[in-house]
Amino acid sequence: MDVDLAQSTPRDEHEALALERAALARWCRGDPGGFVEISDDEVSYFDPFVARRIDGRTALAAYYAGLAGQISEIAWEVIDPMVTDIGDVAILSYRCRSWGERGAMVSWNCTEVFRRRPEGLRLIHTHWSLTAPTEAA
Amino acid sequence: MDVDLAQSTPRDEHEALALERAALARWCRGDPGGFVEISDDEVSYFDPFVARRIDGRTALAAYYAGLAGQISEIAWEVIDPMVTDIGDVAILSYRCRSWGERGAMVSWNCTEVFRRRPEGLRLIHTHWSLTAPTEAA
Repeated sequence: MDVDLAQSTPRDEHEALALERAALARWCRGDPGGFVEISDDEVSYFDPFVARRIDGRTALAAYYAGLAGQISEIAWEVIDPMVTDIGDVAILSYRCRSWGERGAMVSWNCTEVFRRRPEGLRLIHTHWSLTAPTEAA
Repeated sequence: MDVDLAQSTPRDEHEALALERAALARWCRGDPGGFVEISDDEVSYFDPFVARRIDGRTALAAYYAGLAGQISEIAWEVIDPMVTDIGDVAILSYRCRSWGERGAMVSWNCTEVFRRRPEGLRLIHTHWSLTAPTEAA
């Protein structure tokens, strides 16, 4: 079972956010493939667990492959998403809280920069980090 | 005294990176004004110490004002900067290490998304986070 606490996707939701929610839903079930599929060949990536930036879709897919099946979040919530469109770029930022099977909650800051490709929006840059511990949501 | 370990700015350095280095040099001397000056009115901002995204230049300037004079880094280093230009957007990402007066080192991941305005590139989004503790530089 997995639960997106947003319950439903508003019909007027920005394409970038809809793509992100779909990839996130798969991620929380242990499937990083959703993020791989929407990543550009030139994607770059930061998260709090890798000591260098990961550059390129091939390298990112290899990193994600090591995480497949390792993640199991029973619920998650996208908080305060904002998308800024500038030409062929869409900049999405939001916070995200997720709850694991034992109830542990993790809170994230997320930046996703998409670029328009003929096949749709693709991630050119991702930055995940841990939100400050002070509760403010 | 402050020392940018890059020593000098290459003549062919991307405008986004040159702006960032100049703002960073002021930041490390306790002056956040350099970042305020290159921020767009619509800037949004994440760092590891604020529990929400900060939205807008006015709010960001207020946050920075509380940090004025609080930072004193004696040396810093921009690691592995990369800029991707897409139309009027320049996406800069890099890691940064800085050393305080007592020698404490902090390592950062940084994403800076600039947009082209008539007056030059301006920050539309900033994301600072702490790099994973594993040493990899």
